This record gives sequence, C-alpha cells and structure tokens, in this order.
Amino acid sequence: MVKVLLTVAYDGTGFSGWQRQRNAPSVQEEIERALTKLLNKDISVIGASRTDAGVHAAGQRCSFVTDRLAIPVDRLPYAVNSALRSDVSVLKAEIVPPELHPRFSAKTKTYEYVIYNGAIRDPLLRNRSWHIRTPLDTEKISAASSFFIGVHDFKAFCASGSDTKNFTRTILSLQIKIVESQLIMRITGDGFLYNMVRIIAGTLAHVGLGKIEPDDIPRIINSGERSLAGVTAPPQGLTLMEITY
Amino acid sequence: MVKVLLTVAYDGTGFSGWQRQRNAPSVQEEIERALTKLLNKDISVIGASRTDAGVHAAGQRCSFVTDRLAIPVDRLPYAVNSALRSDVSVLKAEIVPPELHPRFSAKTKTYEYVIYNGAIRDPLLRNRSWHIRTPLDTEKISAASSFFIGVHDFKAFCASGSDTKNFTRTILSLQIKIVESQLIMRITGDGFLYNMVRIIAGTLAHVGLGKIEPDDIPRIINSGERSLAGVTAPPQGLTLMEITY
Repeated sequence: MVKVLLTVAYDGTGFSGWQRQRNAPSVQEEIERALTKLLNKDISVIGASRTDAGVHAAGQRCSFVTDRLAIPVDRLPYAVNSALRSDVSVLKAEIVPPELHPRFSAKTKTYEYVIYNGAIRDPLLRNRSWHIRTPLDTEKISAASSFFIGVHDFKAFCASGSDTKNFTRTILSLQIKIVESQLIMRITGDGFLYNMVRIIAGTLAHVGLGKIEPDDIPRIINSGERSLAGVTAPPQGLTLMEITY
Repeated sequence: MVKVLLTVAYDGTGFSGWQRQRNAPSVQEEIERALTKLLNKDISVIGASRTDAGVHAAGQRCSFVTDRLAIPVDRLPYAVNSALRSDVSVLKAEIVPPELHPRFSAKTKTYEYVIYNGAIRDPLLRNRSWHIRTPLDTEKISAASSFFIGVHDFKAFCASGSDTKNFTRTILSLQIKIVESQLIMRITGDGFLYNMVRIIAGTLAHVGLGKIEPDDIPRIINSGERSLAGVTAPPQGLTLMEITY
C-alpha cells in the first residue's frame, strides 16, 4: 500500500465547493474521477480543507491510498491533468508516510482574501475579489489586523451551526498588502474554524468602513458573539494558498 | 448633438470578440444593447480596437452620438453597468469634440501579453495567459525585444488576408517583466496591424525557445515575410490596456 499526497490548484468559480455532493460538480469528485480513470480502480481522496463554492485554491492538499502506483509519482501530475477539467490542476504528487492525514496532520494553513476597492466594478476581477465601492480606511484595517495574531478563542468568528467544541486557534501572521485598488489580506494559522477567514475579512472591511473601530476587535474576540463581528465576506475573494505539514 | 467617449473593460473569455456579428455574443452588441435600453433610443458605438475572441480589455474605448444625454455624463458608467453583463464594465464616460474618432484619433495604444512559463498548468491563469511548459530564455527575449522599438515596416508581423497597404508603425516601448512564473510583455505603439501584438509575442516566445536568435529579428522585420516570424500567440494572453488621444 502506498499513500500519495497531491497539491491541487483550482478556479472555484465553476464548482459547488471541494466536497463531493449529489447533482453538483465538486473538485473532489472531479479529482476522484480522473484518478479512477487513470489508475483503473476506484479511488477516494481525503481533502485537507473543505473549501466552499466559489473559493479558489493554489495549494489545496488531498491524499489517496492505492496498492501500487503504475506510474512514477513525479509523472502523476501530468497524467492526471490530461484527464482533468481545465479549471483544476494537480501541481505536485509525493509519497508520504501512511500516518499522514491531509487534514489532521496539517501544521499551518495560509489563505489570501482580496477586496477590490474601486468605485466601478472590474470585470477581470469579478470572480477573484469582493468588490467594495466605498473607499476603505486601510490604516484602520492594518491597525485592527494585529489584534487577531496569537492564540484566541475565535467563537465570534465561526459560522453558527458548526459542531466544533474547541474554538481556540493560533493566528501566526496576518498581513495587509495594497496593490493598486486591491487590498490583499494574507493570513496564516494552525487551523481555521468554519468561515473564519471570511468572517475576519468581513470584520476588517467593517473596520475600513468605520462601522467597527480597531480597538473594538479584542472586545469582539473576547465576547464570543458572532453577531458582534462583521459580515461573512463572499467566497470568490478567498484563495487557499498553502498547507504545511 | 453630443459625442460621448467610453472607457471599457471586459473579460474576453465569454465573447466572440469586440465586433458585432450574427449569432455570437460580442462586446459591441452588449454595450449597444445596454445603452439603447438606458437611453431609450437606438445607440450604435464605434470601437477603437476590434479585439478578437478571447482577448481582454482594461482600457478599450468606444464612442456614440446622441441628441441629448438624459443623465449627467459622470453618472453614465454606473447607470450603464447596472444593465451590462458582469464580464463588461464601463469605467469612464466623457463628452468629447465631435471630430474625435475613437480609432483614427488614437495617438497610442498599449497592450499586455502574458506567458505563463511553468511546467504544470495553472487553472487560475488559464483564461489570462499562454501556457508554455519549456523554460524560456528570458535574457534572449529581452535582447530580441529591443529590435522592435522604432519606426519599421511590420509586414512580417501582420496576419495574411489583411487589406492594409501601409505596414509602417512606430513602437514606442516594449518592456519585458518577469513576475514569478509569468513573463509579461507590455508594448506601446502608435497603432498595430492585425494580430501584430500576438505575432510579436509568438516571435519572442520562439526566441525564448531558441528557435529564433535575437539577432535574427532585424532580418525578419526587413524581409516582410510573415513565414519567418514566429507563431501567432493565442488570444487569451492579450489585454488591451490603454488608448491615448
């Protein structure tokens, strides 16, 4: 038996998300279909992150197990890609120890969230950013962002309905970069609650709009109240960039 | 009578090009449809550049004439955009002198061409770049690019079948920028022949692949022979960036 870890990129626009579901195209199903065809046996993959519909990935990870691999592992990406839709691509394949679990063994995850802050919508960014027309106060956003770094209970930044019991996560870095009219938030943590990155992005947007003050952030974190944080930013601005083990 | 000049951006992926044609969605038709609906009278626009299917624009221009404008010209983009598909956007509207012609009055045009030079395809760049797997010699490409600058007869860089008689054009600048695995060519000229930017991009790619040497470029230009230049680079790597008057 051999366990293979794949690094996967996709444009999330045409998918209903990572996770396989009935009657809707998922990235998981597409990769399983291509691997099953290529290896001529039923393959199931386990993903590291269940990205939502519209969310993109430059460095998603998933693994599968097979009794033997008929082609060299470094040729696998080329072989799988020739069977995959053009909006998904396997960037890398490597053999890993059987105990590695793509989700539970992950040490860090990095996401980027893009806000397009221009008065008029940009058709070339429509599927890759959240368009906010009102000028954002980027100084306030930078000031607010530093409060998220460290070990916190992030219950206020978790979508309701989650069955998680432990809301403590560590944010290792949160950087704000301005490129022309785009505000790019890059966040690295040891893990994220459901919708946590999008709620942090939405909260920082509310700070930029003056609805929340930077100094309010510690109080919002401590409250554990989802209603005190900002909106859940829309999915198309989010890209899963990297996962480390 | 008032003449209005629009600055337009679009994602060319879903269009059969700028120019109106039967049974295929064109950017021109979409803008005319939205303006006709908004102004409640038949509007025809004249474009500055007839971009091909799949080619994008960040700064296309077009004009229309109307007897009177019912809304302030600076509000026009917002009003038109609310009636336009999400892959087209009017960035700016301004009243211009009646003698200004969007194509014939243009002083300079600037295009960008993106080559994605990675071993494995990137789904997030698939509609915005030409994927070349083989590593390109970027030093050679930079050396070759300088030969295009200046006043030349560009017959060798014009698609056959064009009914143009004058092939002389002036290239004002041609810059090569490397950003991670992307090679971005930015070219400004007083005008371009049909497919000229894409043939220059294809020729520079052949230089990067070692099929053409940088020193061959002057000879290819002087020959006037299309067959000596490189391939026509595919449309999705091209974006019309700016037009000046």
